[in-house]
Amino acid sequence: MNFLTVEKSYLQVLSAWRRDFHQFPEPGWLEFRTSAIIAEKLEALGYDVYVGKEIVNGVSLGVPGKELAEVFYNKALDSNISSEWLEKMEAGKTGVIGIFDTGIEGPTIGYRVDIDALPILESSHENHVPQKLNFRSQNEGFMHACGHDSHATIGLGLAEQLMKVKDKLCGKIILIFQPAEEGVRGGSAIVSSPLLDNIDYLCALHIGTGVPKGTYVAGVDGFLATSKFDVTIRGVAAHSGVNAEKGKNALLASAQAVLALHSLPPHSEGVARVNVGTLEAGSGRNIIPSIAKMQLEIRGETTAINDFYEERVHQIFNGIAAMYDVQVELDKVGYALSIPSDQQLARILNDTAKLQQSLNEVIEYKNFKAGSEDATFLMQKVQQQGGLACYSIIGTNLAAGHHHEEFDIEEDDMLSALEIWLNVPFKIYEELKGNA
Amino acid sequence: MNFLTVEKSYLQVLSAWRRDFHQFPEPGWLEFRTSAIIAEKLEALGYDVYVGKEIVNGVSLGVPGKELAEVFYNKALDSNISSEWLEKMEAGKTGVIGIFDTGIEGPTIGYRVDIDALPILESSHENHVPQKLNFRSQNEGFMHACGHDSHATIGLGLAEQLMKVKDKLCGKIILIFQPAEEGVRGGSAIVSSPLLDNIDYLCALHIGTGVPKGTYVAGVDGFLATSKFDVTIRGVAAHSGVNAEKGKNALLASAQAVLALHSLPPHSEGVARVNVGTLEAGSGRNIIPSIAKMQLEIRGETTAINDFYEERVHQIFNGIAAMYDVQVELDKVGYALSIPSDQQLARILNDTAKLQQSLNEVIEYKNFKAGSEDATFLMQKVQQQGGLACYSIIGTNLAAGHHHEEFDIEEDDMLSALEIWLNVPFKIYEELKGNA
Amino acid sequence: MNFLTVEKSYLQVLSAWRRDFHQFPEPGWLEFRTSAIIAEKLEALGYDVYVGKEIVNGVSLGVPGKELAEVFYNKALDSNISSEWLEKMEAGKTGVIGIFDTGIEGPTIGYRVDIDALPILESSHENHVPQKLNFRSQNEGFMHACGHDSHATIGLGLAEQLMKVKDKLCGKIILIFQPAEEGVRGGSAIVSSPLLDNIDYLCALHIGTGVPKGTYVAGVDGFLATSKFDVTIRGVAAHSGVNAEKGKNALLASAQAVLALHSLPPHSEGVARVNVGTLEAGSGRNIIPSIAKMQLEIRGETTAINDFYEERVHQIFNGIAAMYDVQVELDKVGYALSIPSDQQLARILNDTAKLQQSLNEVIEYKNFKAGSEDATFLMQKVQQQGGLACYSIIGTNLAAGHHHEEFDIEEDDMLSALEIWLNVPFKIYEELKGNA
Amino acid sequence: MNFLTVEKSYLQVLSAWRRDFHQFPEPGWLEFRTSAIIAEKLEALGYDVYVGKEIVNGVSLGVPGKELAEVFYNKALDSNISSEWLEKMEAGKTGVIGIFDTGIEGPTIGYRVDIDALPILESSHENHVPQKLNFRSQNEGFMHACGHDSHATIGLGLAEQLMKVKDKLCGKIILIFQPAEEGVRGGSAIVSSPLLDNIDYLCALHIGTGVPKGTYVAGVDGFLATSKFDVTIRGVAAHSGVNAEKGKNALLASAQAVLALHSLPPHSEGVARVNVGTLEAGSGRNIIPSIAKMQLEIRGETTAINDFYEERVHQIFNGIAAMYDVQVELDKVGYALSIPSDQQLARILNDTAKLQQSLNEVIEYKNFKAGSEDATFLMQKVQQQGGLACYSIIGTNLAAGHHHEEFDIEEDDMLSALEIWLNVPFKIYEELKGNA
Repeated sequence: MNFLTVEKSYLQVLSAWRRDFHQFPEPGWLEFRTSAIIAEKLEALGYDVYVGKEIVNGVSLGVPGKELAEVFYNKALDSNISSEWLEKMEAGKTGVIGIFDTGIEGPTIGYRVDIDALPILESSHENHVPQKLNFRSQNEGFMHACGHDSHATIGLGLAEQLMKVKDKLCGKIILIFQPAEEGVRGGSAIVSSPLLDNIDYLCALHIGTGVPKGTYVAGVDGFLATSKFDVTIRGVAAHSGVNAEKGKNALLASAQAVLALHSLPPHSEGVARVNVGTLEAGSGRNIIPSIAKMQLEIRGETTAINDFYEERVHQIFNGIAAMYDVQVELDKVGYALSIPSDQQLARILNDTAKLQQSLNEVIEYKNFKAGSEDATFLMQKVQQQGGLACYSIIGTNLAAGHHHEEFDIEEDDMLSALEIWLNVPFKIYEELKGNA
Repeated sequence: MNFLTVEKSYLQVLSAWRRDFHQFPEPGWLEFRTSAIIAEKLEALGYDVYVGKEIVNGVSLGVPGKELAEVFYNKALDSNISSEWLEKMEAGKTGVIGIFDTGIEGPTIGYRVDIDALPILESSHENHVPQKLNFRSQNEGFMHACGHDSHATIGLGLAEQLMKVKDKLCGKIILIFQPAEEGVRGGSAIVSSPLLDNIDYLCALHIGTGVPKGTYVAGVDGFLATSKFDVTIRGVAAHSGVNAEKGKNALLASAQAVLALHSLPPHSEGVARVNVGTLEAGSGRNIIPSIAKMQLEIRGETTAINDFYEERVHQIFNGIAAMYDVQVELDKVGYALSIPSDQQLARILNDTAKLQQSLNEVIEYKNFKAGSEDATFLMQKVQQQGGLACYSIIGTNLAAGHHHEEFDIEEDDMLSALEIWLNVPFKIYEELKGNA
Repeated sequence: MNFLTVEKSYLQVLSAWRRDFHQFPEPGWLEFRTSAIIAEKLEALGYDVYVGKEIVNGVSLGVPGKELAEVFYNKALDSNISSEWLEKMEAGKTGVIGIFDTGIEGPTIGYRVDIDALPILESSHENHVPQKLNFRSQNEGFMHACGHDSHATIGLGLAEQLMKVKDKLCGKIILIFQPAEEGVRGGSAIVSSPLLDNIDYLCALHIGTGVPKGTYVAGVDGFLATSKFDVTIRGVAAHSGVNAEKGKNALLASAQAVLALHSLPPHSEGVARVNVGTLEAGSGRNIIPSIAKMQLEIRGETTAINDFYEERVHQIFNGIAAMYDVQVELDKVGYALSIPSDQQLARILNDTAKLQQSLNEVIEYKNFKAGSEDATFLMQKVQQQGGLACYSIIGTNLAAGHHHEEFDIEEDDMLSALEIWLNVPFKIYEELKGNA
Repeated sequence: MNFLTVEKSYLQVLSAWRRDFHQFPEPGWLEFRTSAIIAEKLEALGYDVYVGKEIVNGVSLGVPGKELAEVFYNKALDSNISSEWLEKMEAGKTGVIGIFDTGIEGPTIGYRVDIDALPILESSHENHVPQKLNFRSQNEGFMHACGHDSHATIGLGLAEQLMKVKDKLCGKIILIFQPAEEGVRGGSAIVSSPLLDNIDYLCALHIGTGVPKGTYVAGVDGFLATSKFDVTIRGVAAHSGVNAEKGKNALLASAQAVLALHSLPPHSEGVARVNVGTLEAGSGRNIIPSIAKMQLEIRGETTAINDFYEERVHQIFNGIAAMYDVQVELDKVGYALSIPSDQQLARILNDTAKLQQSLNEVIEYKNFKAGSEDATFLMQKVQQQGGLACYSIIGTNLAAGHHHEEFDIEEDDMLSALEIWLNVPFKIYEELKGNA
């Protein structure tokens, strides 16, 4: 197979896009500006474009509160975004799907990237590249600290490059710019969209995550299934010195819940994790605490293990509500499955990536423990409909680890990844022909 | 008023009875022999006698298991007890009421004593009087370690002495030999008997309890209301190394319950106590514990406070059942109220006791904290029906504290108490005449 | 005795002072402006004046952080306060003592008021009098919501009125404007000042606290001893999915501590209270919590009971530190004793107050449960040195309860209280003469 | 290689031995009779024999109490055991090592079996073979329910058969009859014996454990390291109603400990297990519990993981002692490592076993999760001294699972195992020659 390459100078285009996204990071479910820019470009390139309400069919988990939503909606309004796109969105309904149907018989090939940022205050250290080169976040307190700015850019670059070879394509191309990956919220919300039916090959990708520059992992396995919960316990306040017995103590209830959650048994079928990460309770030293809030998560090596603990979480809080006569709100704010990459598609990606000259090493299949990804919902759907799905990692030199305030990637690795994805359809066509 | 006295030699009669009861102690709800002997004597004296099933109208709390019941039933059968009496009894239905109706108008005066023993192995130390004088318990592992042998004796002696002056009596005399006071079980079970309706004056009494020889406390207040629970938690066993997640851990559930119970809030309206006294859980080091048993009690300065905690106990175990998906059996095995002695009857007893020459000091009214008594059910009933009820204490020299394996009383104090009670009706008649 | 009265018009003076204090509330240990104004006036009236560093000899508990301290120090600087006074103060060293020594033989009579405000945002409701009459707090977020503005005013008014009759005084008058009563911090910090040695009669007072207008309680008993603690637990963070075993979980440690604290046993010698009022722990859902902060308090019917629980609190956190290998900082931020009012001085106050025509009812001695007061340190010192100390309450109509954002008093009750205190020395002189 | 076989009739000899052991089961550290019989036979066969005190050099964990020790010592005395052997033993010092030194250069080959029984009441069901064939346990309450009777028998049979071919042997043969495997106590106690130095090849074996009849697993990996603890917590009793604050509550302390132990974090490097299997606490419903006893265990996929949790267990109980001011005794009563079988020796056993005609299937190497074995101490020593060690399993038809009251094996499988072991030296000689 001929490996299509893109001119090196195209990196400047990618870099400009990425730095623009980087300057205007938007948290999950509020990617108004980001989605609109992507939609605008895809439309200009000739894709059928679907946005926000047109693609989010399911329940949106973990949607931010109204106040924050308005802030980002207004920022988008103020930034010359066409209201045509904004009207298709609201908090909890963001993201873009671009579809190019060649009209010619052939496979449906999907690419999925994510586009949201994190609630992290970006470093303003003079050595931090975005600071030095003047593209540090302008949305103070929010930051693209996980590389989704580059993912969105790779998706856009791919969109453009594919159009340059559109005469050689067959079947359908589906470009998925998924919202709200942080906190694993977006995958389950868009998976039921009919636009995503019958994908034959689905490629997803992440930059960084510990893989060195020059290395490509074609197929990733070992995502932990996970569920995230926000819990609010409401009791009744009372003066602890005067009439403590009138109170219903939300903090005591929480203390018992924390111990019950952390003392859940291990699971014989694989890794399991439970963590209550935060707890805030009470209003004053001498008041029986009437409110407590906690953030917790569970993870399982398989979806079944995760389900086991999810049931236990419900049991525990039902019990706590009864024990302390308190109200418990248990909101599921994130969810991801444990789905392996298909080894067959991993091999195709592996064989394609081996032709990418910028790489030193290509690893066909690897098990990563402990991470979670909501691309797994899309992967599961594809697999259930008879298609193949594969999650890859493109290595880079990170300035600091993911979710760190000094996180930064090297931009040329975006081009490497883009070129591999650009060639995947042709590798697939070759395989299909070979099999025929 | 003339103070009637009994010949000193009568102490030998009392002593013989008391030592017989002492040798054959029977635990609460299994006082077959004791009840039969009392019934036999009361009948011989001319009282109308009601036994066991004839007097226990309510639910009997904390009835011992079948095995132990058979042991004591068979002991009674073997001891020349007339089957006439035994047929009127069964486990949970024991005790005797003797009624003498003069047929002459006048007040109904009740006397209540208790008759059960404790599951304590009596000392065989050479200095322990029952050992030395050869009336140590023959029911190994059971002992009259709280003086109820002397209470029953006082009751019997009173029955006999009253008959000697029966021509001077008017109204009705009701002698109540209540079963199962230990663990506060018998009071609530007999209180609804119509035999106990419309008592005008009710006297109850205890020997010892820290009051020195020669002192009499006419009216006692401050009984704590209490409820006793036996709890069994049933989960599911599993091998902790192989498949811990299959288990439902009754020990973890118990640990949470213990902490929840002990962290119940204090009560602003008075003293409250919660104690989990025993816990036994699990079957092997590497097995998820599938069973746990605990014994607990609550106490309250008022019945309302006790009720508050009783509701909390139910709440906690409902919650525990839900949290751990375990079965919880919560058996109430004891119950007593907080009822004060009537000060008017206390004064009558005080005035009567002041005529008892064996005494150095008579205290009209005193608050005792922390004890509980199921005579309170009878006291409440009398008070609710317009009568007066009073609980007294006759001091003695104790060889060792109540419930101690070397507990022993001085027998002459039985005679002092008997004489006071013998004079109470005449004091009452005098008062009534005075008021008329 | 002649009851000295103050002209009704003097209420306008008091009202002006009180409204000034009300507009510029300062939290405990930061009463820079308040202290300076008081000092200024006392000096002008002829008192020997001691301020801040001159009176705070002991450890200052619960001193606010630097940032807040600077805010209030700068506010004071900006408000035309003479730097002479400010230089005598710093955070943790505030308050004023004014002494008038007649030079004539006679008793030393002390009066103690408190002067600090609360971190409460004052209501701006149109019906809230300070809002309506334009003296609402100008220190946003802080409020005189417990009446200490009126206490300071009564103290100042008394200072002025006493000087008008100074020729009739003998012995010494000591006026104590104590800092930081909220959170019971100031009493223990100033008690060791030699200025407070050898007081013969000490009067302290509170307005409101549930006593109706027109009623005066001369002697209060039943203050609960109390200790307040701020606790910080520092563990080690780790990613809960990746390497949970590397973490040291400050939240789990806190949950155990909360349960251990709330399950401390009741005390047989009197009322006891333990409350963990607030807990904040953790930094993110998937991070093992590395920090937890809690605010807790204990109370006891006697100082000995409070000491018992204080020792237990230390034990528990020592244990928690060992169990979880975490660092625990246990800061005692408040402390008060349980000291009764002397009945002899209560009687004097009672007899004096009975002459106050504005009152309907004077109660000589009353037990209040559940409150705590650090005036108890001064009362204890006086009693230990052979003097008498008494805490009184002047009733008023409250617009809302203490510590409520709409709390407000009726100002004429300040005048009633002032007049009683003004007459106390003469009542004392009369008594002393009578006894002589 | 020629596969040496043993005459089928020899099964009768084995069967007689095994049934004798079965009738007289002895718990770990009390195998007086069993050890003596083995020693007697080994001596008669010409082995150098070392018994009890001669082989137990280390600390004996989990030695039974004196009372039980005397029972079994006296049983042994009564059963015609030569006192020569008994004098070499005491509770905690049992077991036998037999050594045959050929005097000819060659490898030292060790075989390790275990010999102790369990505290289980053997079934007397008519279908239970030992009952039917009249060799049910005569030591009521104890039973060979894990097959160690057959292990001892295989060891003895091997001893006899090796002597029949002793002229073909070279190097040394060491037969280890290890005491107290149940509860993993004996391995660590004998491992430091110099008799066990410099073993070149060590074979250990178990019958059953889920492997079907006709199958042989040559090399086993995956033993979990484990530590077993007995914990006693001693507090102070008090009457819960009268003076609860005087108590030091061992049950509350235990409840916290149980929750702390079960909420220890999972370990990122592999499987970890913590279980508190039993808890007994308290003496009466209304008494603050002054004593609590628990049995717990931890397991780890590696010895390092087990060590991690062992340290945490100590931390937790140190903390508990401080929190509740109680005495904690933490006795380590069992200990085993996680040591893999050497694959090289597994291959030798595999190749040998493939020649055993009674087998259908031989598995060279297999990972078993969740079991623990103290043979691992001997395996570790051999490996550390440059030798090879391998643990094998001979399948059988089990009447019921291990540790079940109806556990039973099929005796002919002892012969199969014996024959494989008999051939191992010759396979090793062949290998060594081949390598030379």
